[in-house]
Amino acid sequence: MSAANSTFLVLSSILVLFMTPGLAFFYGGLVSKRNVVNTMLSVFMICGLAILLWILVGYSLSFSGNLGGVVGDLKSVWLHGVNLAALTPTKIPTGLYMIFQMMFAIITPALFVGAVVGRIRFKFLLSFIIFWSILIYYPMVHMVWDNGFLAHLGVIDFAGGTVVHINAGITALVLSAFLGPRYNYGKGETQHYNILWVLLGTAILWIGWYGFNAGSALAMNGVAIQAFLTTTVATATSMMTWMVIDMITKGKPTLVGVCTGTLCGLVAITPACGYVTTTGAFWIGMIATMTSYAFITLLKPRLGIDDALDAFGCHGVSGIMGSIMTGLFATKAVNSTVTINGLFYGGGFKLFGLQLLATAFTIAFTTVMCIAIIVLLKRVVKMRVDVDEEKLGLDQGEHGEVADYTVSMSSELSDIQTHSNEFQGQLAKLMANHERFR
Amino acid sequence: MSAANSTFLVLSSILVLFMTPGLAFFYGGLVSKRNVVNTMLSVFMICGLAILLWILVGYSLSFSGNLGGVVGDLKSVWLHGVNLAALTPTKIPTGLYMIFQMMFAIITPALFVGAVVGRIRFKFLLSFIIFWSILIYYPMVHMVWDNGFLAHLGVIDFAGGTVVHINAGITALVLSAFLGPRYNYGKGETQHYNILWVLLGTAILWIGWYGFNAGSALAMNGVAIQAFLTTTVATATSMMTWMVIDMITKGKPTLVGVCTGTLCGLVAITPACGYVTTTGAFWIGMIATMTSYAFITLLKPRLGIDDALDAFGCHGVSGIMGSIMTGLFATKAVNSTVTINGLFYGGGFKLFGLQLLATAFTIAFTTVMCIAIIVLLKRVVKMRVDVDEEKLGLDQGEHGEVADYTVSMSSELSDIQTHSNEFQGQLAKLMANHERFR
Amino acid sequence: MSAANSTFLVLSSILVLFMTPGLAFFYGGLVSKRNVVNTMLSVFMICGLAILLWILVGYSLSFSGNLGGVVGDLKSVWLHGVNLAALTPTKIPTGLYMIFQMMFAIITPALFVGAVVGRIRFKFLLSFIIFWSILIYYPMVHMVWDNGFLAHLGVIDFAGGTVVHINAGITALVLSAFLGPRYNYGKGETQHYNILWVLLGTAILWIGWYGFNAGSALAMNGVAIQAFLTTTVATATSMMTWMVIDMITKGKPTLVGVCTGTLCGLVAITPACGYVTTTGAFWIGMIATMTSYAFITLLKPRLGIDDALDAFGCHGVSGIMGSIMTGLFATKAVNSTVTINGLFYGGGFKLFGLQLLATAFTIAFTTVMCIAIIVLLKRVVKMRVDVDEEKLGLDQGEHGEVADYTVSMSSELSDIQTHSNEFQGQLAKLMANHERFR
Repeated sequence: MSAANSTFLVLSSILVLFMTPGLAFFYGGLVSKRNVVNTMLSVFMICGLAILLWILVGYSLSFSGNLGGVVGDLKSVWLHGVNLAALTPTKIPTGLYMIFQMMFAIITPALFVGAVVGRIRFKFLLSFIIFWSILIYYPMVHMVWDNGFLAHLGVIDFAGGTVVHINAGITALVLSAFLGPRYNYGKGETQHYNILWVLLGTAILWIGWYGFNAGSALAMNGVAIQAFLTTTVATATSMMTWMVIDMITKGKPTLVGVCTGTLCGLVAITPACGYVTTTGAFWIGMIATMTSYAFITLLKPRLGIDDALDAFGCHGVSGIMGSIMTGLFATKAVNSTVTINGLFYGGGFKLFGLQLLATAFTIAFTTVMCIAIIVLLKRVVKMRVDVDEEKLGLDQGEHGEVADYTVSMSSELSDIQTHSNEFQGQLAKLMANHERFR
Repeated sequence: MSAANSTFLVLSSILVLFMTPGLAFFYGGLVSKRNVVNTMLSVFMICGLAILLWILVGYSLSFSGNLGGVVGDLKSVWLHGVNLAALTPTKIPTGLYMIFQMMFAIITPALFVGAVVGRIRFKFLLSFIIFWSILIYYPMVHMVWDNGFLAHLGVIDFAGGTVVHINAGITALVLSAFLGPRYNYGKGETQHYNILWVLLGTAILWIGWYGFNAGSALAMNGVAIQAFLTTTVATATSMMTWMVIDMITKGKPTLVGVCTGTLCGLVAITPACGYVTTTGAFWIGMIATMTSYAFITLLKPRLGIDDALDAFGCHGVSGIMGSIMTGLFATKAVNSTVTINGLFYGGGFKLFGLQLLATAFTIAFTTVMCIAIIVLLKRVVKMRVDVDEEKLGLDQGEHGEVADYTVSMSSELSDIQTHSNEFQGQLAKLMANHERFR
Repeated sequence: MSAANSTFLVLSSILVLFMTPGLAFFYGGLVSKRNVVNTMLSVFMICGLAILLWILVGYSLSFSGNLGGVVGDLKSVWLHGVNLAALTPTKIPTGLYMIFQMMFAIITPALFVGAVVGRIRFKFLLSFIIFWSILIYYPMVHMVWDNGFLAHLGVIDFAGGTVVHINAGITALVLSAFLGPRYNYGKGETQHYNILWVLLGTAILWIGWYGFNAGSALAMNGVAIQAFLTTTVATATSMMTWMVIDMITKGKPTLVGVCTGTLCGLVAITPACGYVTTTGAFWIGMIATMTSYAFITLLKPRLGIDDALDAFGCHGVSGIMGSIMTGLFATKAVNSTVTINGLFYGGGFKLFGLQLLATAFTIAFTTVMCIAIIVLLKRVVKMRVDVDEEKLGLDQGEHGEVADYTVSMSSELSDIQTHSNEFQGQLAKLMANHERFR
């Protein structure tokens, strides 16, 4: 085994695992003070759930055998018969590759939690993730990264444009369409709980993403370094793009905007990072961010779908753009495993067409499967909380917890405000009386 | 030197160092708003204290010479005469091994701070940690991990079940017994300062634990990967176990519960991680968590000992379970350095007996030494703050600081509530009068 | 390429990148609740800005060619013609070295943001950083770390005493002198927003610093391990030094003090870390911290310059002390690339003189260039916000955002306090009347 490559993959696995709590903070900071615990717990508990599912059936359905080019078999259930010490082509143990892939199976379902916060029942979400992992996620991994039919066609996806971001983004959209909007949707913006947590989440996601993107080279080699570089450049570009658009259109850069832009860049470069140049990364970052920005500010308000924290607007839209632009910018000069250059590098429309196809297939597959799971699951498990619970907040409703001691302070404060208004009325009356009697 | 192994150990050392501030957040988020700074500072300052102590005498007393199989000598005080460049069996420099072990000497005393928050004097804690390190921790390291008598007997402890968790857990219990309960103990639960910090602490502890557990292989090899895998599986199992118990018994999963469960899994797998299979890890995680859960919810309330943040309930109980179950699940198939298989793998009662012995010895040794230190130290340094300071909170009492600006808001708010009640009384009187005079 | 060295440098690059958001939390936690978003955004957006600048011209001006020993040329603009795969002497790809250096170009300008918070216009800061990077930072990198004249003279700076800390510290001082003090300067201390974020920032900075210091060995070798060790020892010493001084002079250790001390140690050891012994690290940590402490508490109040968060007091003062003391404690015994021992190791005054010279040159160069940039830039871009915006807070003024929902609670609370006082007056009047009429 290569100790250096394995150390790199161990580092990468830890970084990708760290992304999931990072996402919990990103989402938790954005919601209202009454839904913070629910949001964070919904994300964080996936660490436990997805790990056990992965060991139980996920690895097997993703990487063992091949049923019709679509999914693996059940021969390696609970890692049965898997030689964890066997070396992969980059001389890391199979067990380590299995761990690295496990981390992706955690973060992907966590991404769509952002769409459904503030109204989904915890038990529905828990059950949905189990079916979604088995029926959508593991097949997608098999089709794109193992010997599934998309891989055989020549589709390329370095670190998860289709498997992770488009997949999670579409799921977010379908889930929020079925759930319906939050009770106060459209009635003014919710005040964010605390945007320092959004920045912390962004920072953790950024550093974690190097495990995601550079780690996907599965070795410490030139491609890993290139993925590191393009990830960095695309992210910086996206961050500045969002900030500049904000400064031009609103006159003021915002922290939430800069964090969202950062995320769009990370998402967009994911499928392309090991295949493109610094210049390619720059354009991918800029164009994806502009598209996400346009979608979120212009198109989304007309859709009437309450994707609460823009899981689709960010992961879906930038994921689609990144996946397609991989067909424009991929080049053999960067990565010798690229067999056809992208459109802008003289390879013609072949790769571009394939990327379009993979994108369209992922959208269609995820949409259909999601609808099927939701429709069937709703018959057994109630999907949405009561409106009373929604108004109370899911922190108390689903968990009997509040985020911090100031949450109760804030209700005391509003009691006092009510009293204060009463006093004012009574006092005014008395004062009037007093004047009269003087 | 092996650059790959050394890189892995550098990564591991950084991760273990990061655990200590992680623990500061875990504990700081759980206490009341008046004791946050004190809790976090009590944990964090150990980074400075334990590092200097380790360089001064700790490394020497742990790893230089051998006095009666119990402790090292003082020949390597301030690293005198230590050849930092000399290679260990896994081809890392001795200086790096010394650094890695240093990080364990920081986090271990930090663990028991959770038991004593809200009432211990800062100076007592500071002094106690110095004596505890010299008289308890360094000897434990020597006995188990250097050529001490427990090591010679064949006791196995991969990453610190006895040395770290049982040791810290017992210390927590003894300290809180001597200190007595907080003034408001048993009068309703304290409202946690902010449970986002608890989640952050948990996340940092989790990723840091890979340095702790996988790093204890001291090389990037199959055992390190296995330790990574078993740590992950045990932790996921514990997290889900606690959540499911909460859902069954209380109807609601809680974030604090899920975080506590996560921690129990990490603790329990620590002594076993490099010796057991995925299946072993699953059972160790589940059983340890159920035991900790039972202890904390059923047994602890009857003990009358105020282990404020369950340092014993979590580290002590799960540490003991993990250490003993190592004697059940350890197997040569996973790690060739295992000389006797565990009970469930056909090795008979030998290893199981040894693990029981080591556990019992650690409990006894730590208890006796702790009592001795406390009894003697109390004569010189006052142990507990005055009740006035306790009511004011140790943040102001010991440090003249508050955690954040809302702490002062909250006292303004209660002033206003008092006024508001007065107004209400006066107004009612005036209104009655007013009615009479109309 | 050496996969192990490259993995170490990838880890180091990630760690140094993580420092910048870490710094955002450190600074964000210290300011008032009205300037948190502005402070954090001003730091974090540098990640985007400095990365793009570095790719565009920074790498070229630092490492391509040599104009008069002062700065590079423009031949490698946008990495044009750079062979990213070419190996450096430590067998890492040039592209990776370029990435590692990029991370330093982000954190350095972020450091001086601490001086100017609460009153600088966002657009001025943005523009200033562009000119500062081109006219000050890249030349400093070239002079000290590429083949500039200071490098040729034999000046040593392991990880950035002159280039990073003195440079940023002096910039902080000049900027705050030009800006003038905040409107409420000297009228009692501002209440910190939330000091948990200060601790988080400190923790991230500490672990990130290992990338900075050990990573600067550019290989996993004995010097990297030594830099790790000296960084750890100096930091622990500084932390304890500040804490003990606080306990002696004020009777109470504080969390903010311990965090500041930690930072001073990290700063001071930076230029020396790969050249000195454990004992050298101890003295450097202690003396630098005592000097920073004395400057901040005794000298600064008399200067009348409002360096809001002590960017100069910490980075400038400890940076200067560390840089000079490198000339005292550097020794060939630790690092064979040291050609002249320091004064305390028998090398005479040569190295000490060189370090003094480099320190003095950096102070002079940065001061002059900073003044030039500010004077010219002020003609085009307004430097300071209006006093109304300053009182409102820059979060709302520059960004239209607040840090969290309690910020608006706090203004509601003060409204109620105002009302409450009115009520009290009116009620007193009515009650007096009431008594009269009984």
